[in-house]
Amino acid sequence: MRIAVVGCGAVGSFYGAKLARAEHEVHFLLRSDYEIVRRQGVFINSPEGDFQVRPRCARSPGEIGPVDLVLIGLKTTANERFAELLPPVVGSTTTVLTLQNGLGNEEQLARVFRVGQVLGGLCFVCLNRVAPGVIRHLGYGQVVLGEVQRPPDRRTYDLAALFREAGVACRVTENLARAHWEKLVWNIPFNGLGVASAAGFDVFVRLSSDTGPSSLDPQGSTPGECLTTDRLLADPHWARLVRELMLEVIAAARSLGHDVPDAFADQQIEQTRAMGAYKASTVIDFERGQPLEMQSLFQEPLRQATRAGVAMPRLATLCRVLEDLMRSNPLRR
Amino acid sequence: MRIAVVGCGAVGSFYGAKLARAEHEVHFLLRSDYEIVRRQGVFINSPEGDFQVRPRCARSPGEIGPVDLVLIGLKTTANERFAELLPPVVGSTTTVLTLQNGLGNEEQLARVFRVGQVLGGLCFVCLNRVAPGVIRHLGYGQVVLGEVQRPPDRRTYDLAALFREAGVACRVTENLARAHWEKLVWNIPFNGLGVASAAGFDVFVRLSSDTGPSSLDPQGSTPGECLTTDRLLADPHWARLVRELMLEVIAAARSLGHDVPDAFADQQIEQTRAMGAYKASTVIDFERGQPLEMQSLFQEPLRQATRAGVAMPRLATLCRVLEDLMRSNPLRR
Repeated sequence: MRIAVVGCGAVGSFYGAKLARAEHEVHFLLRSDYEIVRRQGVFINSPEGDFQVRPRCARSPGEIGPVDLVLIGLKTTANERFAELLPPVVGSTTTVLTLQNGLGNEEQLARVFRVGQVLGGLCFVCLNRVAPGVIRHLGYGQVVLGEVQRPPDRRTYDLAALFREAGVACRVTENLARAHWEKLVWNIPFNGLGVASAAGFDVFVRLSSDTGPSSLDPQGSTPGECLTTDRLLADPHWARLVRELMLEVIAAARSLGHDVPDAFADQQIEQTRAMGAYKASTVIDFERGQPLEMQSLFQEPLRQATRAGVAMPRLATLCRVLEDLMRSNPLRR
Repeated sequence: MRIAVVGCGAVGSFYGAKLARAEHEVHFLLRSDYEIVRRQGVFINSPEGDFQVRPRCARSPGEIGPVDLVLIGLKTTANERFAELLPPVVGSTTTVLTLQNGLGNEEQLARVFRVGQVLGGLCFVCLNRVAPGVIRHLGYGQVVLGEVQRPPDRRTYDLAALFREAGVACRVTENLARAHWEKLVWNIPFNGLGVASAAGFDVFVRLSSDTGPSSLDPQGSTPGECLTTDRLLADPHWARLVRELMLEVIAAARSLGHDVPDAFADQQIEQTRAMGAYKASTVIDFERGQPLEMQSLFQEPLRQATRAGVAMPRLATLCRVLEDLMRSNPLRR
């Protein structure tokens, strides 16, 4: 199968490399890493066994042309570039699979292509891009595939089989929207509070009450240290906030028709304790001074809830804190 | 009338100040300029006469509460914050008027509120925010109001009257989408090439041909000088590109059902020659190291054309050049 990977960060490179190892014709669209990947390929360092592949490399989508399958691994902060980057690799029979974080990515693709061409894939995986062309796989790796606003069909199951044959654990969900909200129950608190913890106790007070100052003073505070998942859960104040945010996300999900029980929060917390110290992707972005995936992880869930008439005061405050921290981030590039 | 201004840059402050001068109860939502505007008000320096007003000032939308009219003057790069910033000032009878640049802003608002609450206002005005609370008005000032996906009604004309009573030239358009595309005929080349000219002749070659390298090497080039409108038109190479881009935008507009004649391009060019040296807003953003309004001015028009099956190769290339320049901008903050 001819496959293009658009967005060759950790996620795109990892799954693209697995498919290349399974002898598919995989094209990587690259920018800054073009020369090194063309010369040395992609190296995956994994507890399941290291491996290296040599994908075909392109600098522009026009060099690749239409393919059977596009894997989208772009940071969601680059989603506005879909119409610029994708049309050359998408023909009338191409399947476009987004492996990106959070809500709204499939819908944004469906505004450029036919909705029937678009699929969502949720990645449950711990990865780091440690150098150009070098990805460290820390654990997990399952992909959950779903169709947009309709049940899965034969195409969905065929694609899941393709991933499994390439050594990727893959299952199909009947309800992609619900699966996204379930993933947000983890992502919103551990990504959001992981970064917000850099603002210290001040933010804790604000998030805990409905009064308090309306915005951080960027002049007055230097971002401190971001907390890993284990440290958020070890502190009773932060742990309480994690749980309250989870319950707020679950309540919003239920208002949108997704039957997620409150008990899901405690399950997620217990599973996360078992993971040990983990740095959520947004925390890594923040520490690198890169833009945060605000829209897909935080603002779009807030918008969907607002639109449905559901208040999410903790999430709204969290958004404001994160916006302020981004602005004052001394590492910003 | 109770009015909230969300996004108090040059555009929001200017029109908000005019409405405050006309004795409406105008609330400015402010961040970094809060202290100075609360103490000193807003000063408008204008060839039509200087004036100063003291709007009410708030740091959070919750302090303002629901109003009759919201003016949105945010940079479109902040549109993902709509659901975070707006619900506290928008009640069931509030009119939400976006004065922002480019395409898609009304639609993004209509994803948070009822479409019937949302209006678009195109601002034909030359403004600069020269200091906190100080706006320089260089000329023009007309606002063109339109409803979203439907013809104007009594509410539209009432709002136009409100602006006119406040000393703002204001007319109603029957077709907001067409008015947006007409404005893009000017905005895309003069904003886009104004910034792209910083990349010099290399970009000219790329934009002029379909071959050539697919992306600028950010390492290899330091952004040079951005060209003002008069200098773009004085150089025959750049002037030809301005015209070709205008014709590409006009062709896309026509494919979307807006009957804009080719002659519109030369009219715009002649009017721009008569304006003298002018620095488009995106050029100012670039020179300040701020994010460019890529989505509303460039990517959303490209998406709409792509979706309608219309190729815009010059605009697609321009997008890539601008993305590369933003990444390599040494002024980036």
